[in-house]
Amino acid sequence: MTYGYNGQILRVDLSRGAISVEAVDELFCRKYLGGAGFVSYFLLKELQQGIDPLGPENKLIFALGPVTGVPLPGSGRNCVGAKSPLTGGYAKSEVGGFWGAELKHAGYDAIIVEGKAENPVYLWIRDEEASIRDASHLWGKNTKETGQIIRDELGDSLIRVAGIGPAGENLVRFACIMNGLKDAAGRGGTGAVMGSKNLKAIAVRGHKRLKVADPERLKELRQWILAHRELWASFAELGTGAAMEAWVETGNIPIRNFLDGEFPEISKISPPIVRDTIRIKMEGCYACPVRCKKVVKVDEPYSVDPAYGGPEYETLTAIGSNCGVSDLQAIAKGNELCGAYSLDTISTGVVISFAMECFENGLLTTKDTGGIELRFGSAEAMLKLIELITKREGIGGILAEGTARAAQKIGKGAEKFAMHGKGLEIPMHDPRVKAALGLGYAVNPHGADHCANLHDTMYSQSGPFFDRVKLLGILETLPADELGPRKVSMFRDVQLFRIVQDSLVLCQFLPYDVDQAADILAAVTGWKTSLVEIRRVAERTLTMARAFNIREGLTAADDKLPNRFFQPKRNGVLSTKFYDPEQLEKAKSYYYTLMGWDAKTGIPTPEKLQELGIE
Amino acid sequence: MTYGYNGQILRVDLSRGAISVEAVDELFCRKYLGGAGFVSYFLLKELQQGIDPLGPENKLIFALGPVTGVPLPGSGRNCVGAKSPLTGGYAKSEVGGFWGAELKHAGYDAIIVEGKAENPVYLWIRDEEASIRDASHLWGKNTKETGQIIRDELGDSLIRVAGIGPAGENLVRFACIMNGLKDAAGRGGTGAVMGSKNLKAIAVRGHKRLKVADPERLKELRQWILAHRELWASFAELGTGAAMEAWVETGNIPIRNFLDGEFPEISKISPPIVRDTIRIKMEGCYACPVRCKKVVKVDEPYSVDPAYGGPEYETLTAIGSNCGVSDLQAIAKGNELCGAYSLDTISTGVVISFAMECFENGLLTTKDTGGIELRFGSAEAMLKLIELITKREGIGGILAEGTARAAQKIGKGAEKFAMHGKGLEIPMHDPRVKAALGLGYAVNPHGADHCANLHDTMYSQSGPFFDRVKLLGILETLPADELGPRKVSMFRDVQLFRIVQDSLVLCQFLPYDVDQAADILAAVTGWKTSLVEIRRVAERTLTMARAFNIREGLTAADDKLPNRFFQPKRNGVLSTKFYDPEQLEKAKSYYYTLMGWDAKTGIPTPEKLQELGIE
Repeated sequence: MTYGYNGQILRVDLSRGAISVEAVDELFCRKYLGGAGFVSYFLLKELQQGIDPLGPENKLIFALGPVTGVPLPGSGRNCVGAKSPLTGGYAKSEVGGFWGAELKHAGYDAIIVEGKAENPVYLWIRDEEASIRDASHLWGKNTKETGQIIRDELGDSLIRVAGIGPAGENLVRFACIMNGLKDAAGRGGTGAVMGSKNLKAIAVRGHKRLKVADPERLKELRQWILAHRELWASFAELGTGAAMEAWVETGNIPIRNFLDGEFPEISKISPPIVRDTIRIKMEGCYACPVRCKKVVKVDEPYSVDPAYGGPEYETLTAIGSNCGVSDLQAIAKGNELCGAYSLDTISTGVVISFAMECFENGLLTTKDTGGIELRFGSAEAMLKLIELITKREGIGGILAEGTARAAQKIGKGAEKFAMHGKGLEIPMHDPRVKAALGLGYAVNPHGADHCANLHDTMYSQSGPFFDRVKLLGILETLPADELGPRKVSMFRDVQLFRIVQDSLVLCQFLPYDVDQAADILAAVTGWKTSLVEIRRVAERTLTMARAFNIREGLTAADDKLPNRFFQPKRNGVLSTKFYDPEQLEKAKSYYYTLMGWDAKTGIPTPEKLQELGIE
Repeated sequence: MTYGYNGQILRVDLSRGAISVEAVDELFCRKYLGGAGFVSYFLLKELQQGIDPLGPENKLIFALGPVTGVPLPGSGRNCVGAKSPLTGGYAKSEVGGFWGAELKHAGYDAIIVEGKAENPVYLWIRDEEASIRDASHLWGKNTKETGQIIRDELGDSLIRVAGIGPAGENLVRFACIMNGLKDAAGRGGTGAVMGSKNLKAIAVRGHKRLKVADPERLKELRQWILAHRELWASFAELGTGAAMEAWVETGNIPIRNFLDGEFPEISKISPPIVRDTIRIKMEGCYACPVRCKKVVKVDEPYSVDPAYGGPEYETLTAIGSNCGVSDLQAIAKGNELCGAYSLDTISTGVVISFAMECFENGLLTTKDTGGIELRFGSAEAMLKLIELITKREGIGGILAEGTARAAQKIGKGAEKFAMHGKGLEIPMHDPRVKAALGLGYAVNPHGADHCANLHDTMYSQSGPFFDRVKLLGILETLPADELGPRKVSMFRDVQLFRIVQDSLVLCQFLPYDVDQAADILAAVTGWKTSLVEIRRVAERTLTMARAFNIREGLTAADDKLPNRFFQPKRNGVLSTKFYDPEQLEKAKSYYYTLMGWDAKTGIPTPEKLQELGIE
């Protein structure tokens, strides 16, 4: 097998209790790369149309990339995919930590989990030996307890565990899968899929020494990162969201369910205050010097366990400003709970802010909430809802279905408060500030996601971010709120590059230039490759994901934004500015055209499918 | 100014006798690169719609690329462009030798010649001094005499001359421009444009030391070429057309105006026999070790001057097998005459074979030909016609108009013998063997050209050619006669890369991998660039050329092949095989789609023009 890959995937049929190993060859790896590429391939090829995402017919795919587990900053990631219980379409989510690297060193490139175990189980992989083990005693445990018990009973403290807490078990549709306790494959509800299979965890320990084609070149790249600390110093010093306070000024930050532009309390929850108050250290992923992950400790009024790390930007905002909450200790606690229960903090925050707005408008009352005064700004209510959602108790049972379904259940026009794209809750960046990001929210096959996306403000002025994409032929900056053909093309270019990163799998936070991605792939695999080749892979991957969604009945009409974005905010910088829905439709159509999809329906043309070798 | 460019172009208005220098900045260079990119830009921007290609309103553009004149194998080339007197659309042609490098060292990136001199003139450029000089005494001279007289009168034996012979003066529509005596900017009739301006020659002498950003890297690339002689040994040993004899077996070689498949005499005119009989040495272009140019000397029955080099593959075939001629000495003489008179050998050969077929079928008689028995196989007739065409005497006056116009004048159904695309004569590769090449003949904006094109047989099997394009994401070979979406996409990828080469300007014969083109550009300019970026430039260049043609009234209906290709050959390997016209129409449509042009009309969409920054 080619360097960088193990050449085999593990297939686990939980219904039959059968484990098998399948070979993948070099051509397959080169056509699909790994990560998101593998996920798209297997979902499109193997899933039957119309299956229940929470039924045994769904498959849960853990896919590594050629970069996963090599000694290079940014290599600690893997991709998780399934049919999404939130969107009914394609789900994929990337996650950091150490688990992916461990699985690479155990000898696999991916795991496909299918069927459903009769009773709770976990999967134990020790190098090339894999077994399905009883997990009855783990059911109901949080992620920390689960990991500890598994490591204890298997007698190896170095075992890495990916698994779910009670939210996943209870099929909360936005449950995530936790790699360890600090890293979440957050988006799309893969944790619920895992729960639906009665699979509590996958424990891995690997001892294989992975060979790469050009260790010297990898070493140079590693040293390049170390030598360019200025390009990642902000992540290292403050973690994500360093510029949070400035982002209130631009209007980027969601405040009270995307309603408001003013939030004077922002400095109470932003990374500098985190650093100066509750933060005890920074931690990082496998082989990475950036160490962008805040670790916090709180004793009062809540006890927050540092084992769960600390809140990222998305969390500080989602269960913070987005809920009108400015209580940093409560946010830290909420972050811990989400990690312990395996809840996606973005969806959790947005479903809570949605409920708050329903409450403020009388669509929900204390009768519905079991007495909770579910008002914007209530940290107590926010924390309480995390518990109720996890347990599916009371109003939590409705919210556990995700914002879109909850809005339907609540009725009375609640839809207008439901901030989601295809059922996936909107992340913490306002498209009224970033026009192409809004396009991405609308068209991304996995729903409203900010990662496989373009953040317009990074390319509206010269600087290191812009320099990094010049290599894509983007020579001139464009205003952040512009969405003409040049911006659409820029979006597509950057989106394809994100899919490349998600397939390698390589962390977006590392400041590699776009051509270095091809360089890294070449150093790992020994292939003579280029950015053009791996962009072509990304094109294939994205088109397979689109084809999957089309098969599941999603249409161009599902590529939309919540109406709220077509109106100005109630106050603040965006109080006179809104997203132009006509502009979005034009941009969608041109995006489809650029992708080789029908300009109106967004369906990949037969010629494009044939060109890309998609059957 | 950025490394690799001089940052200035020379504008010469022959009507006013005015010479001026205009600056080009780095962004301009990065957006259009040079060569074909500059040609497309200036033709689209500066030419008025509907002008007479042979009138003073046409402009003749000599464009260098960043690679022209740097110390690297393959850097001895420049591009020439104008509105074509043959096609009425966009003309561009690349040419090797030393003239382009000399112009670079004189301090310019391009020359734009406009207007028309009252009397014959030539342009003399010595570094940053340029002057228009009388050329009355040169008019009527052949290219060798012209160069000698100029060098003598200017007193510098190292002056490089690009110019025309009598064919250009006499406005033969397929007259070429000769760089020295061995290298022709052959296609599209730019020599006639030069003649129409009363411009006999451009003499250049440059002393500037060109700076490149990374001389060490260029040196490595130079050494890489030297170390991989096996990749160009065939060119060095036999020149172009080494495989001529085998190509009769595949059906690729035109025989008697593309009618026949059998030509047992092929071994009498193929490169091995050239080497073993009339060849005296091989020569090369500026800074190039490949030395792919045959130099021949013949004393009897014709005297052939070695100063004009020797016949390339296209010439051996065009005025050889394509005319049914197997007399190598006569072909060598024909090649010399074309060089001396400045005639494109491809168009010359095809217009003669057309006339021969007309004669064989009674559409022309000895009355029309002035007594010449214009039969396939007559070397004498072939040589005589070269003289008549050049002088526009008798039948030569009709044929000097090019095949398409000649067919119209002759009438009586002569069109069916006229082998051209958009008026440009078909080169010496049969699309019945190479499906995508036929697509390229049809859609290339400059007409039926084999250079900015894909030769399917290079990609129908593994090997060094195929390996070289794998980097474009083309991982699997495709049959040569296949023309589905994958092939169309492969064609577009390779075509774009050819345009990259024609913009850099970098010789296609050098075996650089596709990513090395970006590497070379980076080494020359110091830009952080990538294959993705320069492909984007090629996309812009090709779309500008398309837009130029659309403005001139060309439509998708002009993107066609001669009907002859839709029928089998009379004999030989292709006697049962033909090109499928429906397949071509489908392929055209998909190609337009991939280019962002309307799928039916082939007109670049407003969005694509906006995306690429074309007004």
